[in-house]
Amino acid sequence: MDIVNLDHLSANPLLPEVQEAMINAIRTDFGNPSSQHKLGDRASEVLDKARESVARLINSGSPKEVVFTSGGTESVNLAVKGVAWAKAEKGKHIVTSNIEHNAVLRSLRRLKMMDYKVSSVPVDSHGRVNPSDVAKAIKEDTILVSIMHSNNEIGTIQPIEEIARIARDKSVVFHVDAVDSVGVVPVDVQKLGVDLLSFASNPMYGPTGVGGLYVRRGTHLWPLLDGGVQENNRRAGTENLIGIIGMSVAAETAVRDMTSRMAAMKKLKDRLLRELPNHIDEYIINGHPELSLPNLVSVSIKYIEGESLVLLLDDENIAVSTRSACAAGALQASHVLLSIGRDFADAQGTLVVTFGLDNSESDLSRFLKALKDAVKTLREISPLYAKAAHA
Amino acid sequence: MDIVNLDHLSANPLLPEVQEAMINAIRTDFGNPSSQHKLGDRASEVLDKARESVARLINSGSPKEVVFTSGGTESVNLAVKGVAWAKAEKGKHIVTSNIEHNAVLRSLRRLKMMDYKVSSVPVDSHGRVNPSDVAKAIKEDTILVSIMHSNNEIGTIQPIEEIARIARDKSVVFHVDAVDSVGVVPVDVQKLGVDLLSFASNPMYGPTGVGGLYVRRGTHLWPLLDGGVQENNRRAGTENLIGIIGMSVAAETAVRDMTSRMAAMKKLKDRLLRELPNHIDEYIINGHPELSLPNLVSVSIKYIEGESLVLLLDDENIAVSTRSACAAGALQASHVLLSIGRDFADAQGTLVVTFGLDNSESDLSRFLKALKDAVKTLREISPLYAKAAHA
Repeated sequence: MDIVNLDHLSANPLLPEVQEAMINAIRTDFGNPSSQHKLGDRASEVLDKARESVARLINSGSPKEVVFTSGGTESVNLAVKGVAWAKAEKGKHIVTSNIEHNAVLRSLRRLKMMDYKVSSVPVDSHGRVNPSDVAKAIKEDTILVSIMHSNNEIGTIQPIEEIARIARDKSVVFHVDAVDSVGVVPVDVQKLGVDLLSFASNPMYGPTGVGGLYVRRGTHLWPLLDGGVQENNRRAGTENLIGIIGMSVAAETAVRDMTSRMAAMKKLKDRLLRELPNHIDEYIINGHPELSLPNLVSVSIKYIEGESLVLLLDDENIAVSTRSACAAGALQASHVLLSIGRDFADAQGTLVVTFGLDNSESDLSRFLKALKDAVKTLREISPLYAKAAHA
Repeated sequence: MDIVNLDHLSANPLLPEVQEAMINAIRTDFGNPSSQHKLGDRASEVLDKARESVARLINSGSPKEVVFTSGGTESVNLAVKGVAWAKAEKGKHIVTSNIEHNAVLRSLRRLKMMDYKVSSVPVDSHGRVNPSDVAKAIKEDTILVSIMHSNNEIGTIQPIEEIARIARDKSVVFHVDAVDSVGVVPVDVQKLGVDLLSFASNPMYGPTGVGGLYVRRGTHLWPLLDGGVQENNRRAGTENLIGIIGMSVAAETAVRDMTSRMAAMKKLKDRLLRELPNHIDEYIINGHPELSLPNLVSVSIKYIEGESLVLLLDDENIAVSTRSACAAGALQASHVLLSIGRDFADAQGTLVVTFGLDNSESDLSRFLKALKDAVKTLREISPLYAKAAHA
């Protein structure tokens, strides 16, 4: 039986157009964009074109504001650490939120080991940051605000424009981790008014290990990778040209298909939410009911272990997740779910379903049926469930 | 006319086996190695296998000692900065040589902005470091020695084993930038006795934008990229699986073909050196006559500008270089050539020829003829040449 992939946040399949472009690039064998002769010229033209396509997706004012990286994690590390180091003389205080991705959280933890201070604002029960909390957290020595665009576990989208206005008023650099938004929902860096915005190729159906950082002209940050003069001196190292070509085609298709994709995702999500009560009971849907990613549903199911549910569904060839793959090895309750008020048990009983373009209505039917059976099986052996006098 | 590529240090073509493996990976569409279900298991197995192949090439004691990165530059940055930050409490002094690649030089320059101190040892006229200079440079607060395996501009190979013994005796971590050696000449991390060794995929005919860092078990360094738990907690971020698969096949072919490849390269190099006097005069061959990369010839040609020579040869569809592509944008005389005693004019008149598996004897004949003509043309318009009373 085919595997139903309902864990697209962990890995999106490559679009056929992306596959073809990458295969072409492999067969064409471009040279090094930085070299001094014809072989390099050709590579350099391809790189420029890819940068334009990616700049268009986020409506960057100039392709020069796009720095290619090895993925969302590098983009975030470059933004957060790069600004922190470059601005150390102005101050060492950074503002973030309680529900950021580990790339932000652990970059900040690292900076704390270098004597930086971090203030983290809370979120409401839907996972939204209150912009006035950010305003209050900004101090004289604040050099950076880093807030995510959408949350990778509950899908909630943040009031980025309002936070950007606050940061700009106070002359603080504003970084947005938009890794799970770019290519999925419209992201316009000029409209948002941000200084730095991290994104990755895979959420837009491009290859893993490629990403980018939008750097508004004039934003001062240190490179994370020092060496050659690539990427406008912002990121040394010969580019992953094959991967970048893949991402650029993914970006072009995302621009072209954004509206229809969002509609398709929303249709699946709406149906899941509508039909869920017919299949399981005693659950909570996490995240904001409207201001949320159209491809993500987070559900905390009482009296079960999320990890066990993932295993049972995997037996049925259905791939789902309890949280981001990046955190899969770390056996702790999700800081995101605890932040929106879930208790430890509910957090551990959470499933994250993420749809993709390859999903059909019948995938969803298969999932709903398998979920019903799996939850029943797990609850039958759950002492908590028995104790709650359901048995 | 086909382009003759004699600038392999800037870009090696992908081997057919590498192309096929990458195309297969693109079509197979592996999942995310870190995810929790079957889709991830398959990716995870492929990643493990790739790590074993790469570990075998450098004779690492365990695949766990191999950290995949986005290329040589990231590997070097991770090694140099990662050790510097992790050991800051022990000391802030680092020893290096005068002829390192910009990835090392600029990483160290960055660390100087963070109050680290750097001692740089000289090289002799062949570009060799004297190990006793390294011994003398190590102080009480030295935390790292970073010396390259082979030089990317003149090919000279360093006495790594002797330096490793010195570093070990003094309990200082030893990093080796072997980006232009691994896959080209035998590199055995256990025999060399190094703690950290940087390498990249392209010099072994794999894709650009992929590389690795050998980290001897127990070596303490901070990650450069913080976030998820990938790469044994040494490097966060979803892996560039397609690129890594390409590198692993490149590594396997390098193990298989090392002897025949080296012989083929040496044959071309020997012929170039033998026939050069029949085509041009007044030049100097840079680098060590024996302890040198078999695929690289650096020649300083008097009374000409290297950049002009590259352009004239490019007109004849012959790709050569004046130095590493990473430094191509920087208009300064090579620090490597100045360090081995070339004067400014000779340094500017230097050509770096790097052979690859795709080169034939007829490529070399075409190059020699074109070189002869180009040097003649350039010298005819050279005021320096006229002044030297040749005209």
